[in-house]
Amino acid sequence: MTTDFPPAEFEARVTNAHKAMHAAGIDALLLTTEAEVRYFTGFRTAFWQSPTRPWFVVLPMGAKPIAIIPEIGAALMRETWVEDIRTWAAPHATDDGLSLLSDALRAARVIGMPMGRESSLRMPLANFEALRARLAGAMFLDASPLLRNLRLVKSAAEIALIADICQITSAAFAQAPSLFHEGQPLNETFRAFKIALLKAGAEDVPYLVGGAGQGGYGDVISPPDDTPLRSGDVLMLDTGASLKGYFADFDRNFAIGQASDAARTAYDTLWSATEAGLQAARPGVPVADVFQAMAAIIGQGASDVGRYGHGLGMQLTEPPSLIDFDETILAPGMVITLEPSLTISPGKIMVHEENIVITDGAPQLLSERAARELPVL
Amino acid sequence: MTTDFPPAEFEARVTNAHKAMHAAGIDALLLTTEAEVRYFTGFRTAFWQSPTRPWFVVLPMGAKPIAIIPEIGAALMRETWVEDIRTWAAPHATDDGLSLLSDALRAARVIGMPMGRESSLRMPLANFEALRARLAGAMFLDASPLLRNLRLVKSAAEIALIADICQITSAAFAQAPSLFHEGQPLNETFRAFKIALLKAGAEDVPYLVGGAGQGGYGDVISPPDDTPLRSGDVLMLDTGASLKGYFADFDRNFAIGQASDAARTAYDTLWSATEAGLQAARPGVPVADVFQAMAAIIGQGASDVGRYGHGLGMQLTEPPSLIDFDETILAPGMVITLEPSLTISPGKIMVHEENIVITDGAPQLLSERAARELPVL
Repeated sequence: MTTDFPPAEFEARVTNAHKAMHAAGIDALLLTTEAEVRYFTGFRTAFWQSPTRPWFVVLPMGAKPIAIIPEIGAALMRETWVEDIRTWAAPHATDDGLSLLSDALRAARVIGMPMGRESSLRMPLANFEALRARLAGAMFLDASPLLRNLRLVKSAAEIALIADICQITSAAFAQAPSLFHEGQPLNETFRAFKIALLKAGAEDVPYLVGGAGQGGYGDVISPPDDTPLRSGDVLMLDTGASLKGYFADFDRNFAIGQASDAARTAYDTLWSATEAGLQAARPGVPVADVFQAMAAIIGQGASDVGRYGHGLGMQLTEPPSLIDFDETILAPGMVITLEPSLTISPGKIMVHEENIVITDGAPQLLSERAARELPVL
Repeated sequence: MTTDFPPAEFEARVTNAHKAMHAAGIDALLLTTEAEVRYFTGFRTAFWQSPTRPWFVVLPMGAKPIAIIPEIGAALMRETWVEDIRTWAAPHATDDGLSLLSDALRAARVIGMPMGRESSLRMPLANFEALRARLAGAMFLDASPLLRNLRLVKSAAEIALIADICQITSAAFAQAPSLFHEGQPLNETFRAFKIALLKAGAEDVPYLVGGAGQGGYGDVISPPDDTPLRSGDVLMLDTGASLKGYFADFDRNFAIGQASDAARTAYDTLWSATEAGLQAARPGVPVADVFQAMAAIIGQGASDVGRYGHGLGMQLTEPPSLIDFDETILAPGMVITLEPSLTISPGKIMVHEENIVITDGAPQLLSERAARELPVL
């Protein structure tokens, strides 16, 4: 077995799922998406990048997961703890797994699947409708809340992986003075940082965004172009590095050559807002309260990011959202980001981010805390 | 405007889409997935990595695309040729874009969206069902064939990008003798190659898989572990590097220290099968014939990969599939991979891959043709 966790990890996940399924009256879960398949099986591959083939996991009540997958994945799935592996030659002219899938679900009267917030259907809609027609006696229920609750609290093994990739990311950011410089085209800045992350031990860098501009940046999701860094720019990089499929997600800001007073002040506000978030993030507290604690420091200068942090783990972003309407109650083992942002002036924003794990007391920082003042490179 | 193509590129895409929509009786296209949104708008961001927020594009008959997106994407979308940008504060407690979306689709009686082979629904299923209920008078049709046909033939600008990233990938593979060596843990081999790709000019490496084993490898989709390369191993790396969102996708095989006769023979068969594919890949020919030309060389030793190549472009894999049932007719401007594979012995396979563009005559290789004989490092 070469998966990333021992079988006990998956047994615990499945046991918890069965309890929740029992409570919800669900006979089987149907999963089509990467994180959900990996969560219950340990099946990890970059091959999801290809949209050609659908992949299915059925988790029946009281039993281990059934993998219903293209033949190309059988060898890797056999390395996991899953025993019931059913394959077909994919792509297939007429039956891309649908017969196998409907057979596996035949006995279920109530089928749970992700249908709610943050979910996707990673199979052709026409095939899903054909499946529903074949299983006309079954009821399909939204299992998003159930799956969300299972994944919110991370195991010690999961936290250790996230801590490792956060440490790697911190080590790469610590090299900023030798990596980034005035005159460097922004796409070269990105490239240098990706290489530094890989050299520091990241397995992959699925996500790197950022921006640079005089006294602040306009956007946090744009790809880089070849505009050179200029003195007075604030450079922000936000990554997305991963290790065995678990993510770090935090950013750092750097002033190039010199920092304006407005940029220093914005940085200070965000640092303080994060501090307020760290003070508020205690078990038993709704995440909305952590949001409000940060919002009280930011005041009127909110950006259009829309939330001040989110869950973190197998995906770059996971539930909960640190936003006023999210009533998730923090509990030990939850891993979240604190990510306040503000508008410095029209079209200029700044974002801070730290990664933390909730404990019985004060949260533990997984990212190395950002410098107290805006670093000048 | 900072998108990757001039407006004329998108105007041509939309004009072709309108023609196809008219022929199919479709009043509006509804798109939710990264490649489809980017194809019509030029909106390119790594932010799709976060599953939290849905993104929508509506393409009405006879009009430019309407972007219905979270506020966080507005600044970047304004850099594209799209004029009609409608945003909401996402994530939202109760209405994650659904009201805006149903307003934009209100006038459409026939709505086309991807529902067929290779498609996904990147919005919560519950919201999609709510949308259908709000638009109860509308018919939802599968637009997968329409979209597939639009994207099959690449423009000169698209081909130039794919050619660039193929050249970058070839340059990185050419460094193999200095990058890979006996005793190197496989995960370090992967890391070294990712860094080489970035240094050679790749913008990103969203996909890197491979394998290593005595005389062949067992699997082509596994992540690497820390097993050291041994003399007699065949090492295969298959990437997935990208430039401005366009992909190269080819692999190379290397023997470490020495090559067995069986490995040399398998390599020779695959090289010859690729040659047969290159001979067969002419305009007017069904891709199934290109598959058959390669299958005739492979004979009885097929692997469980299931096809011998696929389309290539904005995604790592796109239609068509080089397989017996795919009746797509090759035409100039299509970019495909030739990817024959075979089983050397039980549990040991080998895969070859080249990237080509179909022309009026012989196809043009975009990857630098693999060495005639299995290279020994």
